[in-house]
Amino acid sequence: MSASPVTATVDFSAKGRQSGHLRVPQSRDDHGWGTILVPIVVVANGSGPTVLLTAGNHGDEYEGQVALLDLARTLDPAQVQGRVILLPAMHFPAAMAGKRLSPLDGRDFNRCFPGDPRGTFAFVLAHYIDSVLLPLCDFQMDLHSGGTGMDIVPSAVGHFLDDAAMQEKTLAMADAFGAPITLLLREVNAGPTLLAAAEARGIVALSSELGGGGRLNPVNHAITARGARNVLHHAGVLAGKPDVPTAPRRMTVPSLAYYVFAPEGGIFHAADALGATVQAGAPAGRLLFIENPDRPPLELTYGASGLLWCARHVGRVQPGDPVCVIATDM
Amino acid sequence: MSASPVTATVDFSAKGRQSGHLRVPQSRDDHGWGTILVPIVVVANGSGPTVLLTAGNHGDEYEGQVALLDLARTLDPAQVQGRVILLPAMHFPAAMAGKRLSPLDGRDFNRCFPGDPRGTFAFVLAHYIDSVLLPLCDFQMDLHSGGTGMDIVPSAVGHFLDDAAMQEKTLAMADAFGAPITLLLREVNAGPTLLAAAEARGIVALSSELGGGGRLNPVNHAITARGARNVLHHAGVLAGKPDVPTAPRRMTVPSLAYYVFAPEGGIFHAADALGATVQAGAPAGRLLFIENPDRPPLELTYGASGLLWCARHVGRVQPGDPVCVIATDM
Amino acid sequence: MSASPVTATVDFSAKGRQSGHLRVPQSRDDHGWGTILVPIVVVANGSGPTVLLTAGNHGDEYEGQVALLDLARTLDPAQVQGRVILLPAMHFPAAMAGKRLSPLDGRDFNRCFPGDPRGTFAFVLAHYIDSVLLPLCDFQMDLHSGGTGMDIVPSAVGHFLDDAAMQEKTLAMADAFGAPITLLLREVNAGPTLLAAAEARGIVALSSELGGGGRLNPVNHAITARGARNVLHHAGVLAGKPDVPTAPRRMTVPSLAYYVFAPEGGIFHAADALGATVQAGAPAGRLLFIENPDRPPLELTYGASGLLWCARHVGRVQPGDPVCVIATDM
Amino acid sequence: MSASPVTATVDFSAKGRQSGHLRVPQSRDDHGWGTILVPIVVVANGSGPTVLLTAGNHGDEYEGQVALLDLARTLDPAQVQGRVILLPAMHFPAAMAGKRLSPLDGRDFNRCFPGDPRGTFAFVLAHYIDSVLLPLCDFQMDLHSGGTGMDIVPSAVGHFLDDAAMQEKTLAMADAFGAPITLLLREVNAGPTLLAAAEARGIVALSSELGGGGRLNPVNHAITARGARNVLHHAGVLAGKPDVPTAPRRMTVPSLAYYVFAPEGGIFHAADALGATVQAGAPAGRLLFIENPDRPPLELTYGASGLLWCARHVGRVQPGDPVCVIATDM
Amino acid sequence: MSASPVTATVDFSAKGRQSGHLRVPQSRDDHGWGTILVPIVVVANGSGPTVLLTAGNHGDEYEGQVALLDLARTLDPAQVQGRVILLPAMHFPAAMAGKRLSPLDGRDFNRCFPGDPRGTFAFVLAHYIDSVLLPLCDFQMDLHSGGTGMDIVPSAVGHFLDDAAMQEKTLAMADAFGAPITLLLREVNAGPTLLAAAEARGIVALSSELGGGGRLNPVNHAITARGARNVLHHAGVLAGKPDVPTAPRRMTVPSLAYYVFAPEGGIFHAADALGATVQAGAPAGRLLFIENPDRPPLELTYGASGLLWCARHVGRVQPGDPVCVIATDM
Amino acid sequence: MSASPVTATVDFSAKGRQSGHLRVPQSRDDHGWGTILVPIVVVANGSGPTVLLTAGNHGDEYEGQVALLDLARTLDPAQVQGRVILLPAMHFPAAMAGKRLSPLDGRDFNRCFPGDPRGTFAFVLAHYIDSVLLPLCDFQMDLHSGGTGMDIVPSAVGHFLDDAAMQEKTLAMADAFGAPITLLLREVNAGPTLLAAAEARGIVALSSELGGGGRLNPVNHAITARGARNVLHHAGVLAGKPDVPTAPRRMTVPSLAYYVFAPEGGIFHAADALGATVQAGAPAGRLLFIENPDRPPLELTYGASGLLWCARHVGRVQPGDPVCVIATDM
Repeated sequence: MSASPVTATVDFSAKGRQSGHLRVPQSRDDHGWGTILVPIVVVANGSGPTVLLTAGNHGDEYEGQVALLDLARTLDPAQVQGRVILLPAMHFPAAMAGKRLSPLDGRDFNRCFPGDPRGTFAFVLAHYIDSVLLPLCDFQMDLHSGGTGMDIVPSAVGHFLDDAAMQEKTLAMADAFGAPITLLLREVNAGPTLLAAAEARGIVALSSELGGGGRLNPVNHAITARGARNVLHHAGVLAGKPDVPTAPRRMTVPSLAYYVFAPEGGIFHAADALGATVQAGAPAGRLLFIENPDRPPLELTYGASGLLWCARHVGRVQPGDPVCVIATDM
Repeated sequence: MSASPVTATVDFSAKGRQSGHLRVPQSRDDHGWGTILVPIVVVANGSGPTVLLTAGNHGDEYEGQVALLDLARTLDPAQVQGRVILLPAMHFPAAMAGKRLSPLDGRDFNRCFPGDPRGTFAFVLAHYIDSVLLPLCDFQMDLHSGGTGMDIVPSAVGHFLDDAAMQEKTLAMADAFGAPITLLLREVNAGPTLLAAAEARGIVALSSELGGGGRLNPVNHAITARGARNVLHHAGVLAGKPDVPTAPRRMTVPSLAYYVFAPEGGIFHAADALGATVQAGAPAGRLLFIENPDRPPLELTYGASGLLWCARHVGRVQPGDPVCVIATDM
Repeated sequence: MSASPVTATVDFSAKGRQSGHLRVPQSRDDHGWGTILVPIVVVANGSGPTVLLTAGNHGDEYEGQVALLDLARTLDPAQVQGRVILLPAMHFPAAMAGKRLSPLDGRDFNRCFPGDPRGTFAFVLAHYIDSVLLPLCDFQMDLHSGGTGMDIVPSAVGHFLDDAAMQEKTLAMADAFGAPITLLLREVNAGPTLLAAAEARGIVALSSELGGGGRLNPVNHAITARGARNVLHHAGVLAGKPDVPTAPRRMTVPSLAYYVFAPEGGIFHAADALGATVQAGAPAGRLLFIENPDRPPLELTYGASGLLWCARHVGRVQPGDPVCVIATDM
Repeated sequence: MSASPVTATVDFSAKGRQSGHLRVPQSRDDHGWGTILVPIVVVANGSGPTVLLTAGNHGDEYEGQVALLDLARTLDPAQVQGRVILLPAMHFPAAMAGKRLSPLDGRDFNRCFPGDPRGTFAFVLAHYIDSVLLPLCDFQMDLHSGGTGMDIVPSAVGHFLDDAAMQEKTLAMADAFGAPITLLLREVNAGPTLLAAAEARGIVALSSELGGGGRLNPVNHAITARGARNVLHHAGVLAGKPDVPTAPRRMTVPSLAYYVFAPEGGIFHAADALGATVQAGAPAGRLLFIENPDRPPLELTYGASGLLWCARHVGRVQPGDPVCVIATDM
Repeated sequence: MSASPVTATVDFSAKGRQSGHLRVPQSRDDHGWGTILVPIVVVANGSGPTVLLTAGNHGDEYEGQVALLDLARTLDPAQVQGRVILLPAMHFPAAMAGKRLSPLDGRDFNRCFPGDPRGTFAFVLAHYIDSVLLPLCDFQMDLHSGGTGMDIVPSAVGHFLDDAAMQEKTLAMADAFGAPITLLLREVNAGPTLLAAAEARGIVALSSELGGGGRLNPVNHAITARGARNVLHHAGVLAGKPDVPTAPRRMTVPSLAYYVFAPEGGIFHAADALGATVQAGAPAGRLLFIENPDRPPLELTYGASGLLWCARHVGRVQPGDPVCVIATDM
Repeated sequence: MSASPVTATVDFSAKGRQSGHLRVPQSRDDHGWGTILVPIVVVANGSGPTVLLTAGNHGDEYEGQVALLDLARTLDPAQVQGRVILLPAMHFPAAMAGKRLSPLDGRDFNRCFPGDPRGTFAFVLAHYIDSVLLPLCDFQMDLHSGGTGMDIVPSAVGHFLDDAAMQEKTLAMADAFGAPITLLLREVNAGPTLLAAAEARGIVALSSELGGGGRLNPVNHAITARGARNVLHHAGVLAGKPDVPTAPRRMTVPSLAYYVFAPEGGIFHAADALGATVQAGAPAGRLLFIENPDRPPLELTYGASGLLWCARHVGRVQPGDPVCVIATDM
């Protein structure tokens, strides 16, 4: 595979704080040599590991974008041992649009790894991150939330891994992040996510789900901002211990049976609030059909017991949409 | 102006419960005689006034749609004295899409009154409602909420009116609705809304703001469902008194000085939660700029003191967007 | 109302054959002074009435477009007494696209009369035709067919008129056209069609339905080509009598009860072929639902007896679509 | 290549009738974990071969969709020996839209095999069908028709194969289907179709062309419904012999010389009806140009003699469109 | 007609320099109370007339936008006698997009006067300018250029007027602007332009054509910047005389015969450079057809003699496009 | 990789002049067997090398399209020794649209090499050109200009090559083309351009930049037309020497430091005219911001000295756009 057409205006080997761009070529009808500028901040000093923190993988997930913008502006190189690479608005066109999917190619950026230097914008950028940035890193965390469609109890999210040592390191970093929940998932077939790409390169890597609902939730933002610094403490890039007020609850979503799906389109009227403890067989909510006022609502029930970890945010749902996800203790 | 091309499959002069459609012609490339079916339910019995209840004026405002769907299915004609006309998903194409604006013409339905029988779909439907349905009515209430963009403290909303008697009737119906707040606004130049159209025809008329955030908030839904029945009790169509647990707080938004606007696009990080009591000059929040991590956030301040009645929901804002609206006691 | 910005490159008062354009301004991003050229042919000689023949009101109705193209190329001025104005592809942008609706503004041209000189393209053109061309005319016929969505038994179509003398003239011209059926309809509220606009100006005027299915049916084309010349014979512009092999059957569609509507979207499987004689209460067809293979098809029945005059062509239908129209003898 | 993200809610190893879905992830702006539900029905009993029947490869080809919906609802497991897998609306988004191409990515599904688990929807689904469903099968038939653009004499369609035994099996299954014509084609470079994918896996496989014109032709539907059952009889999954009233005529289209192409865009006026016997050099039709009424029509002629097997349906054609295809006896 | 929903954040009766916005409501799917902010600068002092200078009527005409931005930043209130109202980017959505037409409704702003307070954005803004701003004015000039599609010799442009005194004032202001050419046109039916709206209110009003080609031509920008100040000198708002190095040549375009039109689409290869003196009957250029390399180019000729005042800029043209406009001395 | 679905209607081994098409399948909703016809002309005679000349790689670059159309019509086979293959409008859908990017898939054709026979249109065509046409060639030149977005001093453009002999042949052909400048560039990672694809096959290959600005510049067209013939003389396909009035200046663009980029979006007001000699540190122009008339323009400066080889044409620029490129002598 050929080399990347992306260039960086920062020098990854330099010390101090640099604020620059990844320059990604994007031909337009009105400028063949157009470029998308993806902001990047690098803070390096002394010796120590490299940590890559990213947000804006999906443009409508705000908690991480704001946390990393603040960190990018305030992180003092004098206090750093090692290197911090920050992409506060990674999938920049989607982030500027405030949309999950790219306005350029309609793709979900987190389904485009390990990328392709000759593909559309999302693939070109994913390829650069995978082939140029990830090889520089020891730790990586990609800050997600539920976005427009879902509300999720703030959680550091990792994968179940075959390598026990890596699993332990992953759990340790997740707990250090200090969200209310540390959640492990079994990745379906090493999916084409940034997290999977980082794992494939032997990096201690995490994702997260830190709120959602299409808004910037101030409480979740505070968890995110603290967590991002906690990762730097945990990695040893910042001195001192992570600030974790309460030990995270370790949970998982064992199977598709822990999901409630809408079998048809309609308006979803949930029975419970996010974070509730729910029982298998209990009502999860009802689906209403505006096209036929005579039709009774369709009752949906939980297929498993546990914590209502993720709930549909938007009122109108499409056939096949998950509307609830239940987590259980590991 | 010519007559409406819309036909109804219900007989407005008949007794009992009827569920049918407004048939609105909508020519398509694949069917020149296509029709949009707008669900309508009419429940009539004995003698008494006519009440028109509508929801789905904006397709992403779910509280009213669900409340009226339930009412349409369960309202017992035997208990009615008078006539109830229900449009649970009035601007049907927008409601099916779960969008504020019409997917057919991009128009905001509530800016299309009194309509035009030769205009696009929204105008044709507005004209029918104004010229055919409103003349049948004594009371009218259009159930709105903040939709995707805004979260609003649940409120019955009326206009300041020149006619003191109508003002009194309006306030009485608003209080009977029984939301936490009864809010009066000064309509700018008799704007082209359904509420203004109803007032122009001498109907006791209300709008409302019952939540928002693009979701169906169960608490607000309960207020809405109770309020819709309360209106029928108030009008005398249902026997018994409205169920109003707490007398609504009567408030208003005196001027544009009670709004906080975003002067530029960015991510809005609010300082306060909806419903908070805030002070003029205090921080309302800050605006962050992902395109330039070096730029400090822009601090926004309140221009007036009062209740944080309406707050921007979506994280990303555009230049000129109101992000806060303050209400004060009347 | 202000004057039209449209100009014609033909001189309506000149004798002989002229082929030119209506020049309709259409500003584009890449040319502010862009113009749409609508082809027009005028053939005039001696003295006699003026006949306006139009096709391409809807771009996917081909029988009339082809008939008038042939007529425009071959009509010999020496044989004409009076004036023939031909617009073989009247709503030119739609006709070039082969679509019913305009690619410029999505409007159905036949819902835009009497037009507006400051509206979008369709309104500007409709205004010119109504205010400049129609006042020149004694007879007018607009050649329609079922287009993409419908198949229709070839018919000359007129309106029920209050003026008995005009009604008689209309029926006489319709019979002279010589399609298998002469059909009269009651126009709903003097709808904004070209036919209604012509009637409003006291012109003997017809529409037609001459096939459809999105194709050019050669049999129906032959009826159309003969009919267009028959109109000229009937008007006295061409010498000789109309060629009408069989006296048309005079029919009508009395009410909406003669329509079968699809209450939901699905695939329509018709029970009968176009032109069949059908009975009220008999099966009209069934609607199948690909989203749920377990759901039995929905059976639709005729609401009236008569001739299956119009049948849905496209397999997939939307909620509210008419799928059958029954005609009865007058 | 990585594994598929698609999951099935049916158990392919279970006996009896199951109706469920292929769940295909499709991230949306309003739901990152959205899913497209592709209906699937499996009927299995006793022992015997597996037959995969598919329709809705192109969404505007209705004969197969309706035939398989009826079969899916009525096939009695007790009468089955072996297994029948039915996908009545395979490329579900296109089928719901009634369009050939996908509304999600604009791709022609039958050009996407053998698929790609990281591509757009069509590629993800094609990959699942190729890598999961096809390995289960002994026989496969994909029910096509001419769709919106073409009318075709009903035909079972197979490929010329190098393997004489497979060729014989293919012809036998095609004849058993029992359409008026059995047609063999030489596949251009093992094109990326479902048929080619099935052949590559050693499956006895057929495609078909069963009508078209954008409609559900009842006569062709009956041929299709009978043919689908005939395939099950032929495979031994249903007892008894195929019902083939008349032995199919075995034909082929030898080369591009048997096509008539429109060199320019215009309205095509065909000289002959589908199914006619035509002669090389005779007029195939004429092309008319609405943009210039003075231009004479362009006459097109047949380049070969034979049966007019396929004819352009839609009146308006684009440059390069085939408007006629001639078949000859093998 | 109802009042405007637009509000201004500047006080038109105040002295000094104010920079603010016209706030135009624009409902969006993600914010029902969205607003478009149109920048406005007002500079007032002492006593004297009011001059309205506007640019960005079409978003791709840059000379005026830049000239008015510089004037808005640098005009010293102390030197003003009267009032200057500046809209440097009047049709703001189009100007931000760098397009002639609005990205909101596809309309050409200069075809939307006198506007409509209930129409789409362009109509709402036009109505405000016509009904609120124009009544404040004594002089008005709207700075246009050829935009993307055309190159034009820099000219102040006025209308032929019936009122001789107004004609004289118009010519005087045009000459004072000091472009190489002063050009008078006969407005077709008092077209819906800002210029016509201003004239209808008795204001001394001009338009202009100051270059084009989709670029900011520095030479033309200099003429524009000087001309804008000249208008203020001419009106007496600034002291001193206009700076007019050479008396403008007074010209006109007498009729459509002075236009050369492209009868078909193709690539236009012009024979002469802008500003050349050309002769009727001489070659104006040729049209080439990429779809048919065998077809000879179509030669176009001038229909009149004079100055090549306006030339098509973009290489590819559409049928009906003017490609040359000839001006003659008055 | 599988074979191409593209077929040619010309015989590359035949002598004489042939004008035909590359037939590229393009499935449409209204015709599954639709085809795009890409015009191709082949002129062959006697013995000699094969030269491929292409234009319309980007649809808005007109100089080459017109030069090759003229050459295709006028090249006399009797004067040819060898073979000339001409694609005057190679990326045909983009050329018909007059756009850089494809209206079919939004891709930049020159980023699609070496193509993919199963990709979208651009990839299928690129694959055919790379795998079928390039192997026939000894010399290749692809005629580009600056298109809509840029103005460039006419230049033959080649790559810096590792193979000294090929480098010499490339420079010789570039000088023979006879533009004012011969410019060598260092290709970034053997980018997916036609030029790189040709080099990879050992062909002496050139690109060019011959003007731009979205127009057909007659002066640059003359250079292009002469240059295209010069290449044939240079290759020995035409007798006689190239016509090169002035030896081209050999230049290069050494690095990104020779570019001036717009850091934000705005209107660019250039300081110098194309072709000027400029100094590092001098003003390159200024960026103006219509959204804020109070903000001073942003001054941009040159980062290197040399010839202003390429300048932004369109007035409005996006963040990251190059607005100037400086060339220096080799």
